[in-house]
Amino acid sequence: MTLGDQFETRFEVTEQVYRGFMEIFADRNPLHTDEAFAREHGFSGKVMYGNILNGFVSYFVGECLPVKNVAIQHQQIKFGTPVYLHDSLVMHSHLAEVYDTVNAYLFKFYFQNTAGVKVARGEVRIGLLS
Amino acid sequence: MTLGDQFETRFEVTEQVYRGFMEIFADRNPLHTDEAFAREHGFSGKVMYGNILNGFVSYFVGECLPVKNVAIQHQQIKFGTPVYLHDSLVMHSHLAEVYDTVNAYLFKFYFQNTAGVKVARGEVRIGLLS
Repeated sequence: MTLGDQFETRFEVTEQVYRGFMEIFADRNPLHTDEAFAREHGFSGKVMYGNILNGFVSYFVGECLPVKNVAIQHQQIKFGTPVYLHDSLVMHSHLAEVYDTVNAYLFKFYFQNTAGVKVARGEVRIGLLS
Repeated sequence: MTLGDQFETRFEVTEQVYRGFMEIFADRNPLHTDEAFAREHGFSGKVMYGNILNGFVSYFVGECLPVKNVAIQHQQIKFGTPVYLHDSLVMHSHLAEVYDTVNAYLFKFYFQNTAGVKVARGEVRIGLLS
C-alpha cells in the first residue's frame, strides 16, 4: 500500500441491510423506524442508521485492501446529510498517512450518494497484524 | 439531560450478533472468520468486528437516552483489546459536553469486559431534531 492509493467501493442501502441492522442491534428509534416521525422532523422518509456506514467501513478494511492481515485501531465518522433506504453510495477513500515504524495506515474517506452529495466523511486507522 | 449524567448499558456479543453482522456487511476477513488465522496472529480466537461496538453505540443513542428525537452527528472509537464471541460488555458513558446554542450533546464512553478491561473507548455527538 502506497501513500495516496485511492479506492472506490459501491454500497447499496438495501432493505436487507436496513432490516438486518435493526434486528441485530435492536435500535428502534423512531427516526429510523417511523416514517411519519421522520417526516415531522423534516426528513424525506425514515433516516438510515448512520452506523450502517460504519459497517461498510468494516467491509472496506476487511475485504477491499490488498492485504488481509489487518485490524482497525481507530475510526471516526461525521454524518452530514441523511441517507435513505435504497440509496446507492460510493465510498471514496485514500491512503492519507503511513506510519512505517508501527505498521499502521490511515485512510480518509467520504461517502457520496448518486446526487453527488457527500453524506458522511471520516477516517480509519488500521494496523498490520504481526 | 444534564452534564455528568452517567449511563451503563450491557451488551452481549452473541452468535446472532456476530453472524448477523457478517451476513449484512459481507466482511469475511479471516481475522473475524478463521479461528486458525486469528490464533496464528496471537489472538485467543476469532476477533469480533470492531464495528459491532459501533452498532451498540447506535442502540445506546437510539434507545437509552431520555429523549428520542436525536441523531448522531459525529462518532469515534478506539479499539484497544480484542473482543471475542460470547463476551459480555458494559458500555459506560457520560454526558461530557452540552452545546446549548445548537442543541447538541457529547457523550464519552468506554466498553469494559467482565475481566475489567476497557476494550474500546470513544465519543459520540448527538443533536436534537428540530
